[in-house]
Amino acid sequence: MITWKNLDTLDSFKELSQTAKVDVADVMKGEGGAERVKKYSVPMAAGLTYHYAAKAVDDQVLEALKKLAEEAQLTEKFQALYNGEVINTGEKRLVLHHMTRGQLGNKVEADGVDKRAFYVEQQEKIADFANKVHAGEITNAAGEKFTTVVQIGIGGSDLGPRAMYLALENWAKRNNKFKMEAKFISNVDPDDAAAVLASIDVAHSIFILVSKSGTTLETLTNESFVKDALKNAGLDASKHMIAVTSETSPLAKSDDYLAAFFMDDYIGGRYSSTSAVGGAVLSLAFGPDVFAQFLKGAGEEDALAKNEDIFQNPAMLDALIGVYERNVLGYPSTAVLPYSQGLSRFPAHLQQLDMESNGKSVNRFGEPVDYVTGPVIFGEPGTNGQHSFYQLLHQGTDIIPLQFIGFKNNQMGTDVVIQGSTSQQKLCANVAAQIVAFACGKEDENQNKNFKGGRPSSIIIGEQLTPEAMGALLAHFENKVMFQGFVWNLNSFDQEGVQLGKVLAKKVLAHETEGALKELSDLLNI
Amino acid sequence: MITWKNLDTLDSFKELSQTAKVDVADVMKGEGGAERVKKYSVPMAAGLTYHYAAKAVDDQVLEALKKLAEEAQLTEKFQALYNGEVINTGEKRLVLHHMTRGQLGNKVEADGVDKRAFYVEQQEKIADFANKVHAGEITNAAGEKFTTVVQIGIGGSDLGPRAMYLALENWAKRNNKFKMEAKFISNVDPDDAAAVLASIDVAHSIFILVSKSGTTLETLTNESFVKDALKNAGLDASKHMIAVTSETSPLAKSDDYLAAFFMDDYIGGRYSSTSAVGGAVLSLAFGPDVFAQFLKGAGEEDALAKNEDIFQNPAMLDALIGVYERNVLGYPSTAVLPYSQGLSRFPAHLQQLDMESNGKSVNRFGEPVDYVTGPVIFGEPGTNGQHSFYQLLHQGTDIIPLQFIGFKNNQMGTDVVIQGSTSQQKLCANVAAQIVAFACGKEDENQNKNFKGGRPSSIIIGEQLTPEAMGALLAHFENKVMFQGFVWNLNSFDQEGVQLGKVLAKKVLAHETEGALKELSDLLNI
Repeated sequence: MITWKNLDTLDSFKELSQTAKVDVADVMKGEGGAERVKKYSVPMAAGLTYHYAAKAVDDQVLEALKKLAEEAQLTEKFQALYNGEVINTGEKRLVLHHMTRGQLGNKVEADGVDKRAFYVEQQEKIADFANKVHAGEITNAAGEKFTTVVQIGIGGSDLGPRAMYLALENWAKRNNKFKMEAKFISNVDPDDAAAVLASIDVAHSIFILVSKSGTTLETLTNESFVKDALKNAGLDASKHMIAVTSETSPLAKSDDYLAAFFMDDYIGGRYSSTSAVGGAVLSLAFGPDVFAQFLKGAGEEDALAKNEDIFQNPAMLDALIGVYERNVLGYPSTAVLPYSQGLSRFPAHLQQLDMESNGKSVNRFGEPVDYVTGPVIFGEPGTNGQHSFYQLLHQGTDIIPLQFIGFKNNQMGTDVVIQGSTSQQKLCANVAAQIVAFACGKEDENQNKNFKGGRPSSIIIGEQLTPEAMGALLAHFENKVMFQGFVWNLNSFDQEGVQLGKVLAKKVLAHETEGALKELSDLLNI
Repeated sequence: MITWKNLDTLDSFKELSQTAKVDVADVMKGEGGAERVKKYSVPMAAGLTYHYAAKAVDDQVLEALKKLAEEAQLTEKFQALYNGEVINTGEKRLVLHHMTRGQLGNKVEADGVDKRAFYVEQQEKIADFANKVHAGEITNAAGEKFTTVVQIGIGGSDLGPRAMYLALENWAKRNNKFKMEAKFISNVDPDDAAAVLASIDVAHSIFILVSKSGTTLETLTNESFVKDALKNAGLDASKHMIAVTSETSPLAKSDDYLAAFFMDDYIGGRYSSTSAVGGAVLSLAFGPDVFAQFLKGAGEEDALAKNEDIFQNPAMLDALIGVYERNVLGYPSTAVLPYSQGLSRFPAHLQQLDMESNGKSVNRFGEPVDYVTGPVIFGEPGTNGQHSFYQLLHQGTDIIPLQFIGFKNNQMGTDVVIQGSTSQQKLCANVAAQIVAFACGKEDENQNKNFKGGRPSSIIIGEQLTPEAMGALLAHFENKVMFQGFVWNLNSFDQEGVQLGKVLAKKVLAHETEGALKELSDLLNI
């Protein structure tokens, strides 16, 4: 029997709050630090490992986190979710993104169909379509092969798929899996679409319109922008466009599209990279087998999230440590720092995933909560960040928990030896050095050169950023955010906070404004 | 007579802390809100205006901020800086980046030369070089014109110039000022250089090696990577490379470069976009006249920063409001939200500028301070962010102050009318709507759809993102950060916090590790 309770009503949270604080600088020094690195890790899927030696935890804190996981019924809640209960209570919807990559529990029927079968059917349709495009069986009107795919979407239809594309682009090129270049149009700023269109050969481009409802204003606007460009080039737009949408949307059965692939209301935008939203563009760019490997990595990571034992469940443990940092230690933000150029836009995706899911002040029953919830998430790839905002991370007045990601091998396979080491070795040496520098600090009589340390971090280490590793990474963070939402007693799957701006923007465009909004509209010449 | 005092020793700060708090939701409603929009603005250079109606200030708070500016001697400290006093006390250096765009005060001599004359001389040398490249007088060994310029640098040698290039690329294309495509290599991850090299025609590319000291390991490593690629293509690297460095660096008089242009120790990396660091790549990409317009905008904005009256000094006012939000209202981070696709990487530059300058815990005398200093800075372009992390900004448990930027006109000049409005109108309608939504909120009986409002923002509005406007924007934020550093009594111009990581990384590469660092190095296969 599941009960949904606020965090501050749980006995285990009170216990957690009272555990002795761990001095990261102290415990990470000397042989004790080495022991922690050996001991504090959890295997993930696709050869990844989650390491949390440099977090402000010890066996007592971990024991308290374990009790919190039990009292908050994290495993039971996840079971309820994947077995098809209405977890998105605000919108009265199931939450089924896991089912795009596997069947974790019971068969789930909705809209009169087996949902796992539905998602697999869409994957197969996409695979078939992509194969035909690659084989030159589906071509432009002149019978020529498409060379470029352009995704038109915003938010979850943009950030996730774009981050995944960038993560795998170089891997695909190196491994002869690269089929088509992908581009993305998202912003309603007309300069975005104009710049992308100027950079491609429209006659050999296929466009994917992605909108679940078929009514997203930015996306429909950019579609028109693209259709104008196709028309001006003397092309038939309907021979260059496909749609990813829900079966009930106006786009679903329109002659304006070569094909339509479906998602549904049970997959939120920010959780849609493993659905048709990511599937179409990634299958066209890299081939369906690469997309299948990506799903496999995600599915294996999901399976780990079922483990009741937090020491065998990296997402749950990561989530609990994050709650401890936020609600007991009081840290307001978290930096995501991937030491891999391929992950250049992964922090932007995680920023949406986390902040849109858990940036909320009311619990799942619509009652205000008395504790802080989702943190600010930001980040850039290392080593670039080291030459930028790391100054504040090391010596600023606030402590920012850090989430590092690193790989033993690069993607392209080319490297150079300078001063006795390869670039890849330098990259890895830097991330190892940063973890210890943040944790242990270094005393100096000159206070300006003094490092207090005590700045906690974790690191996910993998062999290489492959499609499977990318899938596992993505699922890890999705599940982490889900578990944190459970602990905070939030509905992590709606986003009412984005509505008011939309309503007011419509008023501005209809010139139905007064007061400050009218003055601002005038200043902006609307 | 200037005295450098900690913020918490100032009477005016105590007074500021005791002023009545302003309820943003309350004051921004109705006609009062309209009056605030009309009243609370300051003209900037290049046709920009700084609007702060939606900030948590009123005439009493502003009066207290004015007293704080006086007691903290912000104007006198800026005068001391541009007149050549040693403001970077840690490194015992002058701070002269303003002088790359004008002479704000006295003639400043250092290293035996008039520094303004030195910077102008470098600009002229760069202009001459760029003109010769564009005219085909400087070519590759085969006598063919260069078509691409690649900047090799990291941190300030990358983020600022890259953000400026992206900001002006489409403007230049539209206005027939586009001369050469620019690319950037920064990360020591070998995949970064490999991907850039795979995307260009090396035979027609000119590379700019940017390193003040000539010893930045990432940059030298990437230079070798590039030289290998040139060699493998049968090309003479010395005919394809120029250097931007200090006159005392090993790169300054090397035969390995076609030419060398100089910066000096008085310009910090994050303040170097208007020096040769930005000058070479931007003059090659867009022509020297575009770079000169960019400097003009920055110079005019600098001149405004001299005004003692905070109501005629947008950077100083912005700085003071930021201090009030940080030290009195207790907000730990700030989001930068440009409604312009061209500014896609401007938040990443500001993240470095702000967090590396003021993310410090000791004052300029090396004494720990008892108050918080620089905030976390993050951001993405609107409207993309609206479909991402705005959920937390609207309804999260923490309040995040917002810095909007918007323009009446786009850069490319192409647009489309959908549902009765252009994309540009939709873009502007959205930013106006967001400001009011954040400030005023909207009551709803369903707490999940309730918006408390009270979330403060400012907006800089301009006609169009031109080179002059970009220069003014850049200088505004540089000066804002400088003034905040003065208020917090920090040295904003050093970055000791980045040193420890470098030292430890060298130990890892030399295999001189023990404890946790050794274990982590083993895990990463170093």
